[in-house]
Amino acid sequence: MNIIQIIEKKKLGYALTQQEIQFFIKGATDGSIPDYQLAALLMAIRINGMDRDETGWLTLAMAHSGDMLDLSVIDGVPVDKHSTGGVGDTTTLIVAPLVAACGVPVAKMSGRGLGHTGGTIDKLESIPGFSTEMGMEDFIAQVRRIRIAVIGQTKDLAPADKALYLLRDITSTVDSLPLIASSIMSKKLASGARAIVLDVKTGAGAIMRTLDKSIELAQVMVRIGADAGRDVIALVTDMDEPLGSHIGNALEVKEAIDVLAGRVQGPLLDVSMELGTQMLIAAGAADNALKARQTLDTMLVSGQGMEKLRELISAQGGDPEVCAQPSLLPQAKVVCDAHLKDAGYIHRMDTARLGYLAQRMGAGRTKKTDVIDPSVGFVLRHRIGDAVAAGDAIATVYARGEEDIAFAREELLQAITILPEPARPLKLVHAIVTPDGIIPL
Amino acid sequence: MNIIQIIEKKKLGYALTQQEIQFFIKGATDGSIPDYQLAALLMAIRINGMDRDETGWLTLAMAHSGDMLDLSVIDGVPVDKHSTGGVGDTTTLIVAPLVAACGVPVAKMSGRGLGHTGGTIDKLESIPGFSTEMGMEDFIAQVRRIRIAVIGQTKDLAPADKALYLLRDITSTVDSLPLIASSIMSKKLASGARAIVLDVKTGAGAIMRTLDKSIELAQVMVRIGADAGRDVIALVTDMDEPLGSHIGNALEVKEAIDVLAGRVQGPLLDVSMELGTQMLIAAGAADNALKARQTLDTMLVSGQGMEKLRELISAQGGDPEVCAQPSLLPQAKVVCDAHLKDAGYIHRMDTARLGYLAQRMGAGRTKKTDVIDPSVGFVLRHRIGDAVAAGDAIATVYARGEEDIAFAREELLQAITILPEPARPLKLVHAIVTPDGIIPL
Repeated sequence: MNIIQIIEKKKLGYALTQQEIQFFIKGATDGSIPDYQLAALLMAIRINGMDRDETGWLTLAMAHSGDMLDLSVIDGVPVDKHSTGGVGDTTTLIVAPLVAACGVPVAKMSGRGLGHTGGTIDKLESIPGFSTEMGMEDFIAQVRRIRIAVIGQTKDLAPADKALYLLRDITSTVDSLPLIASSIMSKKLASGARAIVLDVKTGAGAIMRTLDKSIELAQVMVRIGADAGRDVIALVTDMDEPLGSHIGNALEVKEAIDVLAGRVQGPLLDVSMELGTQMLIAAGAADNALKARQTLDTMLVSGQGMEKLRELISAQGGDPEVCAQPSLLPQAKVVCDAHLKDAGYIHRMDTARLGYLAQRMGAGRTKKTDVIDPSVGFVLRHRIGDAVAAGDAIATVYARGEEDIAFAREELLQAITILPEPARPLKLVHAIVTPDGIIPL
Repeated sequence: MNIIQIIEKKKLGYALTQQEIQFFIKGATDGSIPDYQLAALLMAIRINGMDRDETGWLTLAMAHSGDMLDLSVIDGVPVDKHSTGGVGDTTTLIVAPLVAACGVPVAKMSGRGLGHTGGTIDKLESIPGFSTEMGMEDFIAQVRRIRIAVIGQTKDLAPADKALYLLRDITSTVDSLPLIASSIMSKKLASGARAIVLDVKTGAGAIMRTLDKSIELAQVMVRIGADAGRDVIALVTDMDEPLGSHIGNALEVKEAIDVLAGRVQGPLLDVSMELGTQMLIAAGAADNALKARQTLDTMLVSGQGMEKLRELISAQGGDPEVCAQPSLLPQAKVVCDAHLKDAGYIHRMDTARLGYLAQRMGAGRTKKTDVIDPSVGFVLRHRIGDAVAAGDAIATVYARGEEDIAFAREELLQAITILPEPARPLKLVHAIVTPDGIIPL
């Protein structure tokens, strides 16, 4: 087999065989195929696409390019969730403890963020002492002991995906449905969960900006999972505005704590509950959505969800007192409100721009080696549909210095559209995608 | 400006600006843009194309990436010819001396062959002592003195094209019309000729296999030349069978000598005369095709063309006695005929396969560092349309050993299709493409 012939075939729009896909994934993993040939192939895939079989084979080849984790020693059905990424999207920190509190094992390997704000791992690391590095045996032992562990992906997890992702990021080939789907699902398959709930974001702050494209991505991933014998379901949820009000790593941990403490309701809790419901059903811990929801409500109201978060933090070396006293989290140097100039109703938020604002302030990375500042970010005081008056605080900004405050104030005003006519709040969950079809909501 | 944004734009099918094209050509030349980003961009260009403006800007940017040769000190209009490459296509060795004998300056920089058989430079180097390396001053001085010089392209000639070509070859992005056209024309513009005659091959042994695609390539190149203020015309000529009967470097030199000596007529002479006619007209040395043709005939019949070839060989250190005694050229170790099994008429020749056969026997390169064996190749004894009997010799094979002879015999029979019903000889020149339009022939 010859990489040039494989590139040629995809360039002309033909489907690749499983052997050809395995060949180039092996070459991407062991470095025997040079980057420039992989880059040409990725661009041909980006433009000419991949069919269902190719996407499935690609996912399996990437999953098997490294260790395939075996979670069978864990009692129950290990369940995982994955979000395609959004702004103020900190559902994992809420739903993982709630589901684990129900007795369902949550063995989660998470990525670090690249772009926008940090990933779940970056958020957890803003808790003083919290470690996200752990050997596989300790990881499994912790899940057996307390039903939950959240660690960073090891370098042996789908190394082919790492190699390709680095290249995609710098060759403008990120926005490819088969490449996105196989990247996500290869890591999910390799990390061993039997049941997987996907949260596919849609809108101005998501990878897929239209509902059609988001549903298509959900369908492809659900199909890949089903073909690989996993129980997979996807929710397509809104990202036309940030999900939570807090954007930034420590700020998002604080918001998750506020939600688990029962102090904060709203969209972040609602979506977390929807995801948790599907996780319990997928894990066989509830027969239907109503029962699942009631169980989760109990865990929230009784404080058992919060207790599980404390256990998780303790088990991984962090200070559980942050749950009672969020001021123990890293605090920003400068805190200031940003005020609105116009009165009216909030119609749109340029969510990607808000994400890049947080990144630029130090909450996210522009390159892998960037160090995140856990304390910075901003807290939005309003949502789409809200009536606002001139001079109202639209957000509180947490920054490293006055310069960032000024920049953030300007960007916030630019990113948020206020018009005189009333606007409706957004729908939160657009559809559920199962292997059997799409359920519009 | 940012290379990722440029890749993104072409990926989405938008036209690039002149500034963007200049930016990436500069980066390809000085090495500041890594190969993997260039590879992704080349694939996006290959799939999504380039419009007329982009292709012109690309050509100019590549031409100006190195030295722009100034031939203005040479009397008369320096004229160049270029073939897009075919099998048994040795017109330069015939037409360049004939045109120079008419007093028109031929200052030719030629490429080495990659693929198929060798290029003009490889063929000339099969003449004992012949050197194709020369400083620019000596090159121009030789043209002023004897009206002709043929040398290899210097590394300072369109270095951007060299960088991109190397990458295209190994990323399956050679077959792109704007990339082919700009690669050829950037070198022609940089090498300084005021008038350029292009020989665009069409058919089974050409880059462009269909007449439509070949005419399109001719049009694009003629337009680029006209936009750059050069006098450019293209002939679209047949490559559904080898042009000459001799394939291989020294063998092709011998055939050119036979043609200039008046011993051999046929398609190779005919196409050379057509090209020469256009070169004389383009250089202003003849008013019309009839007069140009008569002048060239005189140069051939009087032996002045052959005399010019002797002068060229002497001037560049070669042994001009090869013209009188072609047996002074490198001789193959083993020479054997290949015989036909079937009787009938020759209908088709898989010309690319014949080219690869010569390459495989040692007449061409598969990689840049390969050393060519000048002596090997084969001489076809028949053309398409010929009636043949079982047992007839279809070719004489010149090889390094018995193994190659056996392989060549097998390949020759596979590449040549013989059927019982009569077949017509092929048309040689399909069209002339000028800046004003297409003249079908």
